[in-house]
Amino acid sequence: MYSAGVNAAERLIESTRDLLWERGYVGTSPKAIQQRAGSGQGSMYHHFSGKQELALTAIRRTAEEMRARAEEQFSGPGTPIERITAYLRRERDVLKGCPIGRLTQDPDVMADPLLRAPVDETLGWLRGRLAGIVAETGTKLDPQAVAATIVATLQGGYVLARAAGSPAPFDQAVSGLLSLLTD
Amino acid sequence: MYSAGVNAAERLIESTRDLLWERGYVGTSPKAIQQRAGSGQGSMYHHFSGKQELALTAIRRTAEEMRARAEEQFSGPGTPIERITAYLRRERDVLKGCPIGRLTQDPDVMADPLLRAPVDETLGWLRGRLAGIVAETGTKLDPQAVAATIVATLQGGYVLARAAGSPAPFDQAVSGLLSLLTD
Repeated sequence: MYSAGVNAAERLIESTRDLLWERGYVGTSPKAIQQRAGSGQGSMYHHFSGKQELALTAIRRTAEEMRARAEEQFSGPGTPIERITAYLRRERDVLKGCPIGRLTQDPDVMADPLLRAPVDETLGWLRGRLAGIVAETGTKLDPQAVAATIVATLQGGYVLARAAGSPAPFDQAVSGLLSLLTD
Repeated sequence: MYSAGVNAAERLIESTRDLLWERGYVGTSPKAIQQRAGSGQGSMYHHFSGKQELALTAIRRTAEEMRARAEEQFSGPGTPIERITAYLRRERDVLKGCPIGRLTQDPDVMADPLLRAPVDETLGWLRGRLAGIVAETGTKLDPQAVAATIVATLQGGYVLARAAGSPAPFDQAVSGLLSLLTD
């Protein structure tokens, strides 16, 4: 019984993560989550107070994974510029976009301080971590500003790729940034 | 009669533009458009075949305005870098984001080639226009790539600002980009 309950909760969280990425929060109904998870309304409201709590759990888990994956490159081998390059060039599902960044376009996530918090924290952490690595390069430019440009280029690169229906503009934006950073 | 019809169609288009920006395409129902426009279902379907045609008209109009506004800075006075700076620094409703770029996060817009086309064309035009201005600077870097970085920084700057609930990270990303461009 315990294990079945854990599995049901787990399926609900993972289904919410998928749907948030595919349809956004506005586009995801409690019913769609239940259908994707193959569980009933009773099970969902037994484990979670509702769509908001499920989404918060899903967003936090996605944010944790995103940090862990970024940290692999940030604390990997190489010079600061090599680590930034490894982070920018690592394999990504470009056309799906960033599962955290995309939430900023979701009006109901932005209007809910509880749901916006993990989005803000994650992108803030990313900027802070990159600012530290940029500072290591010994540049005379403002590391905070350059770090914001790096994160913005990634997030905006996804926007350009989705508009074009091709990862090419994302790759171009990253190439342009790296050429400016190493110029 | 004619004028009343034009006004009704006009109100429907403007209401759709507002709602697309506020709620996105997925989050905007035909009923919400009718309510915002103060018109009935009959009037909407007299003037437009449905939500898709209305959204297409609304997106095209927003795209035209965006191009015209960008062109003011692109063909304005000053050196290429001064014109790029004027474009990046001009007043924007940063927390509302880009009315065209935001549509790339809307699953139903991206799934519809007709609705995606003006989004793709507008961002493609912007990149092409900026590549020409970057080339004018005589840089040895690839103008297409640097132009993609500029547009991505803007689009991603909106993402960072919305996440933070403040325009500050947008301004930082633009400052970082300008420092890299003029370094």
